[in-house]
Amino acid sequence: MKHYSYFRSSAAYRVRIALNLKGVDYEQVPVNLVTAQQQAQAYLALNPQGLVPALELEDGTILSQSMAILEWLEDTYPAPELYPADATKRALMRSFCSNIACDVHPLNNLSVLNYLRDELGADERQVAAWYSHWVCRVFDAAEKQVATGNGKFCFGEAPSMADCLLIPQMYNALRFNVAVTPYPTLLTIYAHCTALPAFAAADPLRQADNPDQLS
Amino acid sequence: MKHYSYFRSSAAYRVRIALNLKGVDYEQVPVNLVTAQQQAQAYLALNPQGLVPALELEDGTILSQSMAILEWLEDTYPAPELYPADATKRALMRSFCSNIACDVHPLNNLSVLNYLRDELGADERQVAAWYSHWVCRVFDAAEKQVATGNGKFCFGEAPSMADCLLIPQMYNALRFNVAVTPYPTLLTIYAHCTALPAFAAADPLRQADNPDQLS
Repeated sequence: MKHYSYFRSSAAYRVRIALNLKGVDYEQVPVNLVTAQQQAQAYLALNPQGLVPALELEDGTILSQSMAILEWLEDTYPAPELYPADATKRALMRSFCSNIACDVHPLNNLSVLNYLRDELGADERQVAAWYSHWVCRVFDAAEKQVATGNGKFCFGEAPSMADCLLIPQMYNALRFNVAVTPYPTLLTIYAHCTALPAFAAADPLRQADNPDQLS
Repeated sequence: MKHYSYFRSSAAYRVRIALNLKGVDYEQVPVNLVTAQQQAQAYLALNPQGLVPALELEDGTILSQSMAILEWLEDTYPAPELYPADATKRALMRSFCSNIACDVHPLNNLSVLNYLRDELGADERQVAAWYSHWVCRVFDAAEKQVATGNGKFCFGEAPSMADCLLIPQMYNALRFNVAVTPYPTLLTIYAHCTALPAFAAADPLRQADNPDQLS
């Protein structure tokens, strides 16, 4: 299985965490978004949408969109379970995940920030305010949702899909200097999860395509 | 079961279609987004995110986020199936759905368009260009994905989750005057599906909270 990834893509980071948690063997194929490799013919032939992540299955099928890939991993490698078995609890977790996957990430990815700059003339202060606005709108709700938990994981006693979504989003929020002090529980979960092997191995700082890769 | 809905919300429209396809009995509760009822205390007490749709289950649990609700409906009311049984085909359909749910809708909803106007000073021409840009980026790919089909449904011989996502997005694209002539197959599917009872009953024009409701 091949995972087309860019070290800093938070959607690819989600998939790396899930692959590691499931113990799935995969080959990482870097796609450099800064040099627009995702728009090169070779990559578009694989994934016409020109986005990462993409997962190439053994039979050559290409899956795109991180949420579809995460659901496929759960369907195909059920252990360890990343969703609760109970349908209502699973729906509540999918709702938590959608808040990040739909209501933060798409608004803050590189193509959107560049549109703000190039087409709407936004300056860097305005871009940063935009970025923070959408993160905080969802983190305000997320902090309340996890505040009654154990501070180790978003929900329950083991890593779940919610953690696969939260950790990369928090990584991005810190990278973009979002004021995260109102989110102490989210930060505690972040500190706990990023120290676990499956998350640590998925960290952007540890990816081979990161020019500042940690050893 | 109660469905908190606004006639024009395309995310609520998705859920109405799926409820109708599954033959689930539900009470529609209108939440007027134009008068900001979703930000009123009464609604925030139910759904702290202040978004529609939300589904109130018989036990009082509130599910938010349309994609989580759609997955819950599929888990809880398996017939008729809205996803393929095969895991890879299901992943490919989830990818199609995510393209719309993640890469179009969140960028074009009312709160974002208002942010462009109010915070970034975008004029109506710029807002319309923004709207079209994100629709067309995804419709370009979607048209190719469905072009080899039967022109009745996105995939296969029966309505699926893909149609639940496409139809409301096309409705919105038409409402915002997006140039949709490059998408003949998507338009044919739209014409076919909107004539079917489950889709017609979900149409914004037929909702009781639409001031221009058709009889």
